[in-house]
Amino acid sequence: MSEKPKSHGRLSISASLQPRDLMDERPRLKGAWTAKIVTLFPQAFPGVLGQSLTGRALDQGLWALETIDLRPFGDGKHKNVDDTPAGGGAGMVLRPDVVGAALKQANIGTPKDRAKWPVVYLSPRGKPFNQAMAHQFAEADGMTLLCGRFEGVDERVLEEFGVQEVSLGDFVLTGGEIAAQALIDATVRLIPRVLGNQASTEEESFSDGLLEHPQYTRPAVWEGRAIPEILQSGHHANIASWRKAMAERLTKERRPDLWRAYCEKHGRDPDEDQEL
Amino acid sequence: MSEKPKSHGRLSISASLQPRDLMDERPRLKGAWTAKIVTLFPQAFPGVLGQSLTGRALDQGLWALETIDLRPFGDGKHKNVDDTPAGGGAGMVLRPDVVGAALKQANIGTPKDRAKWPVVYLSPRGKPFNQAMAHQFAEADGMTLLCGRFEGVDERVLEEFGVQEVSLGDFVLTGGEIAAQALIDATVRLIPRVLGNQASTEEESFSDGLLEHPQYTRPAVWEGRAIPEILQSGHHANIASWRKAMAERLTKERRPDLWRAYCEKHGRDPDEDQEL
Repeated sequence: MSEKPKSHGRLSISASLQPRDLMDERPRLKGAWTAKIVTLFPQAFPGVLGQSLTGRALDQGLWALETIDLRPFGDGKHKNVDDTPAGGGAGMVLRPDVVGAALKQANIGTPKDRAKWPVVYLSPRGKPFNQAMAHQFAEADGMTLLCGRFEGVDERVLEEFGVQEVSLGDFVLTGGEIAAQALIDATVRLIPRVLGNQASTEEESFSDGLLEHPQYTRPAVWEGRAIPEILQSGHHANIASWRKAMAERLTKERRPDLWRAYCEKHGRDPDEDQEL
Repeated sequence: MSEKPKSHGRLSISASLQPRDLMDERPRLKGAWTAKIVTLFPQAFPGVLGQSLTGRALDQGLWALETIDLRPFGDGKHKNVDDTPAGGGAGMVLRPDVVGAALKQANIGTPKDRAKWPVVYLSPRGKPFNQAMAHQFAEADGMTLLCGRFEGVDERVLEEFGVQEVSLGDFVLTGGEIAAQALIDATVRLIPRVLGNQASTEEESFSDGLLEHPQYTRPAVWEGRAIPEILQSGHHANIASWRKAMAERLTKERRPDLWRAYCEKHGRDPDEDQEL
């Protein structure tokens, strides 16, 4: 991450020899939703989260970010955080004593109730992250995110701390940091006042279990392609039903799993013909 | 893998009128896998990708990153990139002419064959990203990633440029940048020599369609919790079958979808009892 964001019009001056800790310069509103992140790469935060809507909300203290560097909890002179897997195998495993000490620090000042303060380990073994989970996390006071590296974390520390495993998807990342940022981004935007226009969270994908309909904007004709006529008709009811039909068709084509769930919920036949 | 061996050792120098950005200060090996990213937040890159294994590989020129700032392609004095949705509704839609001009620039010097150079738009409407897709992308010469913001992108530009929609999962992000980083991270680590220990990509989650077994490391006893005895037995065959049984049990418990697919592939009964 380049530490200083490129300013457009505003001059940012950093006079210190110390690397700037962006988090500490930000205001924190009392009771603001807080993400505590246990990581070997604290400098990777806030990263993209420091930009755009999430960045502005962070600046305004609508949410807060605290990184807990795993390294100082490491063992011995070299502050080792990992060791070889018991039973053999490739890679290294994060030690339970090291991760445990960091999670203990993260626990300070947080509710013990895991519904009010989830503790999440980002791992492909976890429950797949989805929009419903983002809503749950947004309703908590905050959460702790443990970012793994290497072959994973000693299982015992996950049991001891009641850690919930959450997966970003069926793919493998070099570490949990990007997954943590995705989870935080999806969660933070649901916090009141973070998005300027609250309406847009309600209309978008997944709010009714359907993929979003196609969008069009100016120019009316581009590269010989015109905006569908119905969208220019001004007839709101027709537009709404066209959009719904498109959303249903897209979902049926691209995501049979979501389509089946949607049909079950609405008492529809998943094999019915679309009227488009 | 593509037939032509990627040569490692020659830097390619490209003369350009564009101002040099941070990424260009890194060496680029001729033929190295390259991610071109169309974004309103070029400063968000490389972000976490500049750290750790992916960062070292970037420094070594094993892969390359090029950002294409969407803003200069914007319209008028204010360089507007978006406009209101045709047919009404909340939010703003990225204009096809603006995005099209940026994609046209990204196309320069890249193969037309979308198998050799996928062009991906990160969107919750897309096909869910998975490990098989990461392998496909890693075998291409590189790829272009379009990061959306707001309510999305005009549908016509996706059609015109043969853009493949890929989703990180069933959740909504404020923009495509974090999703792009996740996709790049998962892909880049599959490029030869990026991971020091090649073995670890083969053993890990999803290589056989199962979630990974639990891992343990020193100390042998921590907080009254001991490493399972079998892992300390030194009996490799027993350890391997214990791990496989644990991986199967975890998958069955946490991911019935993966478990059904695994059983189908291996001619197993998904409801059979585990012998643990």
